[in-house]
Amino acid sequence: MLVAYFSQTGNTESMAEAVAEGARSEDADVVVKRIGDVTKADLEAADGIALGSPVHMGDVAVEVRSALVDWAYGKGFWRSRGLENKACAVFATGGAPSNGKEFTMLSMALGLLQYGMVLVTPYGGLGASATTGVPEHEKGVGEHELSEARGLGARLARVALRLRE
Amino acid sequence: MLVAYFSQTGNTESMAEAVAEGARSEDADVVVKRIGDVTKADLEAADGIALGSPVHMGDVAVEVRSALVDWAYGKGFWRSRGLENKACAVFATGGAPSNGKEFTMLSMALGLLQYGMVLVTPYGGLGASATTGVPEHEKGVGEHELSEARGLGARLARVALRLRE
Amino acid sequence: MLVAYFSQTGNTESMAEAVAEGARSEDADVVVKRIGDVTKADLEAADGIALGSPVHMGDVAVEVRSALVDWAYGKGFWRSRGLENKACAVFATGGAPSNGKEFTMLSMALGLLQYGMVLVTPYGGLGASATTGVPEHEKGVGEHELSEARGLGARLARVALRLRE
Amino acid sequence: MLVAYFSQTGNTESMAEAVAEGARSEDADVVVKRIGDVTKADLEAADGIALGSPVHMGDVAVEVRSALVDWAYGKGFWRSRGLENKACAVFATGGAPSNGKEFTMLSMALGLLQYGMVLVTPYGGLGASATTGVPEHEKGVGEHELSEARGLGARLARVALRLRE
Repeated sequence: MLVAYFSQTGNTESMAEAVAEGARSEDADVVVKRIGDVTKADLEAADGIALGSPVHMGDVAVEVRSALVDWAYGKGFWRSRGLENKACAVFATGGAPSNGKEFTMLSMALGLLQYGMVLVTPYGGLGASATTGVPEHEKGVGEHELSEARGLGARLARVALRLRE
Repeated sequence: MLVAYFSQTGNTESMAEAVAEGARSEDADVVVKRIGDVTKADLEAADGIALGSPVHMGDVAVEVRSALVDWAYGKGFWRSRGLENKACAVFATGGAPSNGKEFTMLSMALGLLQYGMVLVTPYGGLGASATTGVPEHEKGVGEHELSEARGLGARLARVALRLRE
Repeated sequence: MLVAYFSQTGNTESMAEAVAEGARSEDADVVVKRIGDVTKADLEAADGIALGSPVHMGDVAVEVRSALVDWAYGKGFWRSRGLENKACAVFATGGAPSNGKEFTMLSMALGLLQYGMVLVTPYGGLGASATTGVPEHEKGVGEHELSEARGLGARLARVALRLRE
Repeated sequence: MLVAYFSQTGNTESMAEAVAEGARSEDADVVVKRIGDVTKADLEAADGIALGSPVHMGDVAVEVRSALVDWAYGKGFWRSRGLENKACAVFATGGAPSNGKEFTMLSMALGLLQYGMVLVTPYGGLGASATTGVPEHEKGVGEHELSEARGLGARLARVALRLRE
């Protein structure tokens, strides 16, 4: 499994580690990488992909949107259909409760679904998310939020296993 | 101005009252009504409409979606174009930080925009929202959230005034 | 597999029949029902659920939104988690190319994902959709669109089979 | 007024020109620029901003998402609130009827609304859009679609005029 993320403050990275931890608890092999370091081989090898982004101006980070397009055309996965039927999941962090985490997760989910991936979510939500506080009052990622991320990683691993032939 | 809402627990009603209070602080005449009580005359008279809903299963309440369709066909505003160029705004309440408040506000905003209304939002968000807690740990609407709702009401009133001939 | 839909003009019903046909081509047992006729037993029995709606005022039909809430609370699937890990897919019809079919499919997808279902889409889209024309110039559902719906049904059946223990 | 767009094939550029034409028909001064050429002064001078993008992998082009973040932080409009209360509108082009034009327009609208801009749409939709055909069967932008873009430009100009003090 691949957990790919963009992070500046470390919050989304914390969530990525928690998703990975959850997947490992299901005996999945997990690679955790910053989005810019993900290779074509990483994507080919993964039977599940979790993608994470902070909220930037109400929506997904440019670095993540950019990668989703690069995977399609630069790395050739649009024509090869090489990501089809893999499992996918998304996670996001943002400063305030309703400042775009849902739209950020939506953008990533839509991008992954374009490739014919199968979307796995937590019960009652579109992805795992953390409200990390405004700059003046930074609280970071809470234990409850890490726990949700672990749960998503575990669930993604279980679905990916079933989808694999 | 019309503030229309659906509420079961009283949380969305609290937000509606705060939106109204904000609009009144700008000297707007404000009518606050439960969504089912809104009449054709209420809609015609308003130069701005704020619409609020709790999150139900990740999206807008049936009662609110239903009203948006009824206003179009039952009350005839789709053909009459009688809501065009009015100002509009949305607000929502939900139990958890990212359980659908953004999608609920989106659904209402899309519905109002269909009529050619002009959408007014808070700075940095799609609408005013409150995270009210899960049933076992109900916290209700906080002062910071009411303040955002008041701000949205005031802003809606100012834009509505400018849009009026 | 269950194909549930709301339809007034017959367009969404045509899409529903095509989704069902695609699923049957993969040897799935398929039940096709209008949304109001779907029973608790139908939902329990299905290992995959396809849900379809026309666009009404830019978003999902009230009847479909209403069913998604009823399944949760009226039929008890929110607490029982009885729909978790089933496969799901969505389809929509609308008069104009960009009048809300994407948002209608999004609303249904978000609703189904709330239950922990796993979302299956066509390659390059969120669901199967048909642009059926404005009332004055009704064109109905085209062969290309029915073909996409069949493809989605077949894909849903294949994924549902793999997800089943 | 500013019409900013990204275009590779010329389709989104055609839509941009039509939006500008519509705004000029209302006696607005209009600047049409590729997104990468937009300056801080362009943004400050405009009382309305129309933003256009093609669909790339189901969502907004990286170049456009990137500009929305650059305007906030690179050009300083987030802290200065220098775009607040300006009117805004969006337009998009995509190959297939429901391949992401709505989500592309949503992403741009959400970005512009973050700045406290006021969103203006066509009657019955979120923005002006064109279905331009798949590469093998390119049809370009049709007259009906250009007409919708002109109408949106005219409407944006009228609302921007009213919002200006």
